[in-house]
Amino acid sequence: MPENPALAGVKDLIARMADTLPIAFISSLDAEGYPCTKAMLSPRVREGIRVFYFTTNTFSLRVAHYKANPKASIYFCDADGFKGMMLRGTMEVLTDAASKEMIWREGDEEYYPGGVTDPNYCVLKFTATDGRFYSDYYPRSFVIE
Amino acid sequence: MPENPALAGVKDLIARMADTLPIAFISSLDAEGYPCTKAMLSPRVREGIRVFYFTTNTFSLRVAHYKANPKASIYFCDADGFKGMMLRGTMEVLTDAASKEMIWREGDEEYYPGGVTDPNYCVLKFTATDGRFYSDYYPRSFVIE
Repeated sequence: MPENPALAGVKDLIARMADTLPIAFISSLDAEGYPCTKAMLSPRVREGIRVFYFTTNTFSLRVAHYKANPKASIYFCDADGFKGMMLRGTMEVLTDAASKEMIWREGDEEYYPGGVTDPNYCVLKFTATDGRFYSDYYPRSFVIE
Repeated sequence: MPENPALAGVKDLIARMADTLPIAFISSLDAEGYPCTKAMLSPRVREGIRVFYFTTNTFSLRVAHYKANPKASIYFCDADGFKGMMLRGTMEVLTDAASKEMIWREGDEEYYPGGVTDPNYCVLKFTATDGRFYSDYYPRSFVIE
């Protein structure tokens, strides 16, 4: 997939898009092998541009997809700037207390009345292997070290 | 997939989202079986809420994906209204003159200098079988007749 491993600025742009855009799009495979996409609140925590953590509902369709098949992508879209950034990798479903506490925020009780131990609250951990950047009608692929 | 086949208003909403949102997200499967997503200009022509036509580049990665595996979804996102609409189905790549002429618009020469017969200009035809509507944290599935 790599075409140009030395993409100046792409890493900074990924970080900026992840930190400033309000939503991200996550993709999964359903039971019949169709690609599915859904808007999510942007990742709450990230480790560089390789690992991204999202909150989600334990009993959601997306969680069922990733448990059955971890292949995933996440996509950031700056529609005004005609920029798109897709990262490809795998998604893990985390339900351990440490992971849930790490990304819990005040106010989440509105969605998860049981608090950080609410059984319907869990964490999606995305780990990127490579990506593709769309801008100016000239897509470019890159590898995440 | 159907949970509630009689979803009042969903058909109107799909039509409205397709007609007013500037972009749509299309998903495909890559050669390694990963789900991929990309923002596209919204469909130019549609037949009800079942068939949607997009323009794209013949030599794009997306076209290669759909030629190898037509499983697809399209997603409309009204981020301000916290609404998401995913349609699941198949994507065909059309390169015949009639299809290309049907959705060609004045000004497309900017992207396709060869005009409507430009070999890099082609049509993606998406046909939906069912879908899923996300709103108010309560997702609902429906079937497209």
